Amino acid sequence: MHPFRKFIQSYVVVSDSDWEKIEAVLLRKEYLQGEILLREGQYCQKLYFLEDGFLRYFVYKKDGEEATKFFTIAPYCFTSQRSFTSNNPSTENIQALENSIVWEMDQSAAFDLLELKSWSEFIRKLIQEVQFYTEEILLELQNKTAEDRYIKMLTESSIILQKSPLKYVASYLGIAPQSLSRIRKKFYSSRRS
Amino acid sequence: MHPFRKFIQSYVVVSDSDWEKIEAVLLRKEYLQGEILLREGQYCQKLYFLEDGFLRYFVYKKDGEEATKFFTIAPYCFTSQRSFTSNNPSTENIQALENSIVWEMDQSAAFDLLELKSWSEFIRKLIQEVQFYTEEILLELQNKTAEDRYIKMLTESSIILQKSPLKYVASYLGIAPQSLSRIRKKFYSSRRS
Repeated sequence: MHPFRKFIQSYVVVSDSDWEKIEAVLLRKEYLQGEILLREGQYCQKLYFLEDGFLRYFVYKKDGEEATKFFTIAPYCFTSQRSFTSNNPSTENIQALENSIVWEMDQSAAFDLLELKSWSEFIRKLIQEVQFYTEEILLELQNKTAEDRYIKMLTESSIILQKSPLKYVASYLGIAPQSLSRIRKKFYSSRRS
Repeated sequence: MHPFRKFIQSYVVVSDSDWEKIEAVLLRKEYLQGEILLREGQYCQKLYFLEDGFLRYFVYKKDGEEATKFFTIAPYCFTSQRSFTSNNPSTENIQALENSIVWEMDQSAAFDLLELKSWSEFIRKLIQEVQFYTEEILLELQNKTAEDRYIKMLTESSIILQKSPLKYVASYLGIAPQSLSRIRKKFYSSRRS
């Protein structure tokens, strides 16, 4: 089964005829580690499915430093949602942190597919899930220290810690890389003792 | 025109026959200032439309202190989304900060209405918008100081500052009320000079 069909079917039932319409508008792409899929200021007119690989979203802060917003682990859908939906220039950058296999479809095709009940339900559930994740990260930022959040990542998202350079994890946690080193040192020494 | 129909129509076109089906499942409620609409641990099985009033979402931190997550200004829809969608106990509290007029519908009715193209499109656009807001707050928390965020509230969400007790604003900004007082003092004295 096509990996994207398998992914959609983890949310909704997709008939063969609906899947044929979806598959007809998909294009396969490969991105190399480090490659930028989308740059701030560009119009994001694609909906993407990450079959294999690992991505990060980041923005540039006033001082020119990069701030990592979040990570995307395959298999998952992604886009620059605000740009995609409202036809504004993107305010974020998307970078492959590993060699990645991506399926993309044009914005207009993605909108046309909303005529299909399966696709429309899939998109609703997907946005809802993304909303949950975003809200969860927000709640943690509001209520937890960087140390607590790092420990939570260790238990719940350890794959991100395995895959991502530490500087991006530090930036995601909103702290300096040196602070993350201190937290890690403290955590591992407390586990040894 | 019913205020909820007016609200939905700011997103999608709603035919008279679709509206009749929506209106049939709506119930009007009034809440007093300070009243809790939903408590952590309860199952949130309603979708709400806030016709008039002002709400805050909050959680209890480990130390028992309340942390304000966000505010809802009328007219807008609200629910405890994760509880509503996944039938889990709510992890948040919703409180009326003003006397509020609310229209509610049962979860099952809200799901049944998804058969209507207008309603299904409305819900998709609404979740997307909530996702934008959440992402924006997240991005600010990751990249801006409490002072910058307060100044942004002054220009973009000054209505919240007019309506909300300062302690909730401080908690939303993730700082102590005393720190907010210092930021306000500094801001207003710099404007006078």
